[in-house]
Amino acid sequence: MLTDFQIGVLGGDARQLQIIKKLCDADATLYLVGFEELDEEIPGAIKTEMDDIPTGELDAVILPVPGTDQEGYLDSHFSNYSPQLTKEWVQKLNRSCTIFTGITRDYLTDLCEESNLQLVPLFNRDDVAIYNSIPTVEGTVMMAIQYTDFTIHNSNVVTLGFGRTGKTVARIFQALGANVKVGARRQSDLARIFEMGFEPFHINDLSDHVEECDILINTVPHPIVNVKVIQNMQLHSIIIDLASKPGGTDFRYAKRRGIKAILAPGLPGMVAPKTAGDILASVISQILLEEKGERGNY
Amino acid sequence: MLTDFQIGVLGGDARQLQIIKKLCDADATLYLVGFEELDEEIPGAIKTEMDDIPTGELDAVILPVPGTDQEGYLDSHFSNYSPQLTKEWVQKLNRSCTIFTGITRDYLTDLCEESNLQLVPLFNRDDVAIYNSIPTVEGTVMMAIQYTDFTIHNSNVVTLGFGRTGKTVARIFQALGANVKVGARRQSDLARIFEMGFEPFHINDLSDHVEECDILINTVPHPIVNVKVIQNMQLHSIIIDLASKPGGTDFRYAKRRGIKAILAPGLPGMVAPKTAGDILASVISQILLEEKGERGNY
Amino acid sequence: MLTDFQIGVLGGDARQLQIIKKLCDADATLYLVGFEELDEEIPGAIKTEMDDIPTGELDAVILPVPGTDQEGYLDSHFSNYSPQLTKEWVQKLNRSCTIFTGITRDYLTDLCEESNLQLVPLFNRDDVAIYNSIPTVEGTVMMAIQYTDFTIHNSNVVTLGFGRTGKTVARIFQALGANVKVGARRQSDLARIFEMGFEPFHINDLSDHVEECDILINTVPHPIVNVKVIQNMQLHSIIIDLASKPGGTDFRYAKRRGIKAILAPGLPGMVAPKTAGDILASVISQILLEEKGERGNY
Amino acid sequence: MLTDFQIGVLGGDARQLQIIKKLCDADATLYLVGFEELDEEIPGAIKTEMDDIPTGELDAVILPVPGTDQEGYLDSHFSNYSPQLTKEWVQKLNRSCTIFTGITRDYLTDLCEESNLQLVPLFNRDDVAIYNSIPTVEGTVMMAIQYTDFTIHNSNVVTLGFGRTGKTVARIFQALGANVKVGARRQSDLARIFEMGFEPFHINDLSDHVEECDILINTVPHPIVNVKVIQNMQLHSIIIDLASKPGGTDFRYAKRRGIKAILAPGLPGMVAPKTAGDILASVISQILLEEKGERGNY
Ligand SMILES: NC(=O)c1ccc[n+]([C@@H]2O[C@H](COP(=O)([O-])OP(=O)(O)OC[C@H]3O[C@@H](n4cnc5c(N)ncnc54)[C@H](OP(=O)(O)O)[C@@H]3O)[C@@H](O)[C@H]2O)c1
Ligand SMILES: NC(=O)c1ccc[n+]([C@@H]2O[C@H](COP(=O)([O-])OP(=O)(O)OC[C@H]3O[C@@H](n4cnc5c(N)ncnc54)[C@H](OP(=O)(O)O)[C@@H]3O)[C@@H](O)[C@H]2O)c1
Ligand SMILES: NC(=O)c1ccc[n+]([C@@H]2O[C@H](COP(=O)([O-])OP(=O)(O)OC[C@H]3O[C@@H](n4cnc5c(N)ncnc54)[C@H](OP(=O)(O)O)[C@@H]3O)[C@@H](O)[C@H]2O)c1
Ligand SMILES: NC(=O)c1ccc[n+]([C@@H]2O[C@H](COP(=O)([O-])OP(=O)(O)OC[C@H]3O[C@@H](n4cnc5c(N)ncnc54)[C@H](OP(=O)(O)O)[C@@H]3O)[C@@H](O)[C@H]2O)c1
Repeated sequence: MLTDFQIGVLGGDARQLQIIKKLCDADATLYLVGFEELDEEIPGAIKTEMDDIPTGELDAVILPVPGTDQEGYLDSHFSNYSPQLTKEWVQKLNRSCTIFTGITRDYLTDLCEESNLQLVPLFNRDDVAIYNSIPTVEGTVMMAIQYTDFTIHNSNVVTLGFGRTGKTVARIFQALGANVKVGARRQSDLARIFEMGFEPFHINDLSDHVEECDILINTVPHPIVNVKVIQNMQLHSIIIDLASKPGGTDFRYAKRRGIKAILAPGLPGMVAPKTAGDILASVISQILLEEKGERGNY
Repeated sequence: MLTDFQIGVLGGDARQLQIIKKLCDADATLYLVGFEELDEEIPGAIKTEMDDIPTGELDAVILPVPGTDQEGYLDSHFSNYSPQLTKEWVQKLNRSCTIFTGITRDYLTDLCEESNLQLVPLFNRDDVAIYNSIPTVEGTVMMAIQYTDFTIHNSNVVTLGFGRTGKTVARIFQALGANVKVGARRQSDLARIFEMGFEPFHINDLSDHVEECDILINTVPHPIVNVKVIQNMQLHSIIIDLASKPGGTDFRYAKRRGIKAILAPGLPGMVAPKTAGDILASVISQILLEEKGERGNY
Repeated sequence: MLTDFQIGVLGGDARQLQIIKKLCDADATLYLVGFEELDEEIPGAIKTEMDDIPTGELDAVILPVPGTDQEGYLDSHFSNYSPQLTKEWVQKLNRSCTIFTGITRDYLTDLCEESNLQLVPLFNRDDVAIYNSIPTVEGTVMMAIQYTDFTIHNSNVVTLGFGRTGKTVARIFQALGANVKVGARRQSDLARIFEMGFEPFHINDLSDHVEECDILINTVPHPIVNVKVIQNMQLHSIIIDLASKPGGTDFRYAKRRGIKAILAPGLPGMVAPKTAGDILASVISQILLEEKGERGNY
Repeated sequence: MLTDFQIGVLGGDARQLQIIKKLCDADATLYLVGFEELDEEIPGAIKTEMDDIPTGELDAVILPVPGTDQEGYLDSHFSNYSPQLTKEWVQKLNRSCTIFTGITRDYLTDLCEESNLQLVPLFNRDDVAIYNSIPTVEGTVMMAIQYTDFTIHNSNVVTLGFGRTGKTVARIFQALGANVKVGARRQSDLARIFEMGFEPFHINDLSDHVEECDILINTVPHPIVNVKVIQNMQLHSIIIDLASKPGGTDFRYAKRRGIKAILAPGLPGMVAPKTAGDILASVISQILLEEKGERGNY
């Protein structure tokens, strides 16, 4: 339980909404900024403004998944303005207050460093990345069904990378009945790929393994689906690139060859915001409890 | 090989296109009616009109999946008019000519009976129904991802019916990580459900098994998802009804309770016309070869 | 609950023991014949002799899984003599008493017919055969591990028959990471085999599909693993024949070619007597309750 | 290909035999010591004595999986004496010669260090440990079937550790239809356990998760299955401890409580020596080729 915890939630999308609900359920007190258009009443959550939050008493501040832009503005799906995270505001926070974000870029990182505040970019954590791989892969499955005229079952799928997302991709496409080959570079990954019943190949040999591929799914954030690879692919095949922008695919060349290639960022928030919010809420709770201990009079 | 076979293809959609390609690949000669707008040239296929087909020489006539309407008209996706299957035309066919359709209704059934022609409603065949269950289920998966804000993984799924489609539904949702309960009425089905790792229950007790359900998928073509069942379901849950029209769900009551319920007919043609066409082409070839033997001078 | 039910249990093995426990748990009264050497005391179960049972009051008689031999003797694992089921004894039973056995042969079938008693050969039931397929396959897995020097994982397994046992065999060997081909003869079975991710072939073509086979598992009770098949197999391969005696394998020729071939009857009682007993107990209870209704004063 | 490679194989068991075959197939020249009783003739392999090997020309020496004992003796399954690896012999080797063993202890480690020779303890490699997890788990499955009277299917299995062996254990018991809970201590492991469909728990809470357990499988080489855990277990349950000696179980207390607990070392060599040998042969070849490059005149 998060009884007596006070938390600011500044902007966000449907995932934040789920975070808010979960934390309120756990008895925390929440101050919401940028949620004017949210109709629902959530007991324990107070809609307010940046300047009206009891800044000095907050145990945590939760930012939207993408963090701030380079001027500190925070995207807010439930409002038509964007709250801003300024140096002045941040410096009113208690030193023990934790700032949660999905990812972070310079402005936010610097701000927290200067203000000597702990910043937790949740998406850097292995556990979050693994939990998130589940909605990511369901989004990928949805796209593979939507954008092809054949079934995943009995199709030839090549997946690239066997990290936190790649393992889940391979597992689920196999479960759907595809013949799955997985490209990786570590010997231990190749061994696990074999053990799990996929066909392993060294990612350096990628261009030799795509000739019969119907669906290519990339999770490697490096330009590995290059001209040499794409020219070996069948015209009816499709490339779904999950790696963070700009992906690992030569999209220009794919287009020229007439092969559909899609960069698909942000799938969890898109296909399963409730689950994606639950994942974040549960890790946030756990971190708060570990760091600050359970409170309340029980 | 279907060398020397002559086949008429009258109307249809993307599935027909795939059938045409497959049969031409197998060296048959095809007469296409209702394909004016098809740009592609397919060697072996001749675009023509009802009256110009060498009716008396045809080995088979392939109709669109839904067969004819009650006046004999045939839906044609690649044309802006609908060819008509008339008694006069049909009676010019050789008695050994086979008529293939997906499903059949009175007009078509009667026509063939009167004319003493063999009619093969492909969707009545167990093998076709089982092959078709694959794209059907992928369509269902797509809908379950699209129409919910949570993941299939770790959700509670109840599936109804353990026939040709139901078995595949249960298998795939389990493979995606759902907790799957299956309702059926035969003891042997309940035993197989248990063996395959699902939780079996007798379909008569359905209303006792939906309280924790997030996704309900029906394949039983009888009104079993009734008021009593729906009132026990959670408001965030979703019903996907695959049974042929009008489905097995009380849609009116579901709407009233605010539970999303979707009747989802014709999924194979929608999500995987190529695979759906391949399935039909392969069964058609097999039937023709079995009945008429391989021909050609080789 | 089986309150007020009176049941005779005549001979049997570890499975009977489990049946006894389950039925006593369900509050039935049991008369055990041929259990002298059973040390355990089971409340509700009375050790006695054929002649001391209140024959006329019995609701059911449970025989050992193999039934009687051709003179009516019943195998008894927990005794050093075999009780005999005689015409005289049987005719003292009430006409509504049900006789349960696993399988039946002439003597028993005739006896019940003459005496106008309902005989239930449990192993003929589809549900029992399906439940039993689970321990059967675990026994098969155990043998495949024990009798080969390679792993099931990544081996080539051919299974024959896709009935109640065959489906489970194929599923489990695939789950263990084998490449599984399944031979069957019905089009609908071939379709389901494909849908479940196995490689289907027509069982008539068996001899063409064994060349790379490492483990061949037969469930077809007909001589199909014949000379032509065996001569195409690799010397290191193994045949496990589950079909009831004499199996479907030419054991003589396998031996001559130096290929290990094993007839493996009665696996459930061997590897999982507790589970095998539970299966029977649960079906027996269900039949008794359906036929005779729940009793007792509650 | 290993053309022109010269390799000494000193003692070993059935795994060595498979290594010998594979390396000979790859065209290496092998000197076998301690294989007098091996009847088979393997082209490319020469049976000899320690003193007759062309020591100075060897590219590699392959020891038995357990390495040497503390006096340098090497176990030899195909001989009735044990070759000895002495300092004198080792020092005659070329500095570029690689020594392969499964595991190593002081004597062997020191010997190679003193002699400035590269020692490769294969079982320390992640890839070998993962490949080996496959036969290890099949051995575990065999034991779970043999030593219980119930099926793995539908039983409650608790597995401990989610490392190289633990992942495979959990996967396979789930595939066989068990309800699998996995105990681990890293957040990322708990996330992956959840993603793969097992029920995760923190290993510190082990004693709270064994009450319904039927089969407990340990891979953690620490005393975690202690009195507190064992006293919460059911009497019919079984503990299979895979961790290297002395395992992680309080065997004394398990015995006292009447719970069967088995320490099961060395399963790969026991249940699948051919596969286990193949794994080693393939990693040895790969290391030799990487280090020394392909040779031969082609
Ligand atoms: N589209 C979405 O909705 C979505 C959702 C989640 C994640 N993502 C993105 O997906 C990508 C993967 O995420 P992740 O969590 O799976 O990361 P990860 O665990 O770090 O996995 C990355 C994989 O790529 C491999 N890799 C990295 N650089 C490589 C190179 N130069 N050559 C070959 N292989 C290389 C890694 O291999 P090694 O282990 O050998 O380095 C690893 O297998 C990231 O860009 C992430 O932002 C997108
Ligand atoms: N939406 C789509 O795209 C799509 C695609 C394919 C099929 N379908 C439709 O899906 C439905 C199922 O097709 P199928 O091929 O799976 O049919 P099927 O093999 O006949 O299976 C029907 C199942 O429903 C059960 N059932 C029938 N009547 C019942 C009743 N009164 N009470 C309880 N259970 C009952 C059957 O049980 P018993 O075996 O005990 O009778 C069986 O388990 C059909 O309406 C079909 O047209 C739709
Ligand atoms: N070893 C053990 O411990 C154990 C345990 C259980 C069962 N069994 C034995 O295993 C066998 C199979 O049992 P089951 O319950 O699976 O029976 P089942 O459901 O009747 O299945 C038998 C299979 O064999 C096929 N088949 C029968 N005759 C054939 C023929 N002449 N040619 C080709 N295929 C043929 C059937 O195909 P169709 O459907 O096309 O006829 C079906 O696929 C029986 O002999 C049974 O006694 C042994
Ligand atoms: N019986 C056989 O035939 C056979 C075959 C292969 C291996 N083995 C043995 O099996 C054991 C496991 O091998 P492996 O290759 O899987 O090793 P591994 O990859 O290192 O895995 C060990 C697991 O144990 C966990 N662990 C270690 N110390 C722990 C502690 N104090 N508390 C809680 N968890 C702890 C590790 O967690 P962290 O990652 O958090 O450290 C990891 O999950 C070894 O003893 C090995 O020798 C036996």
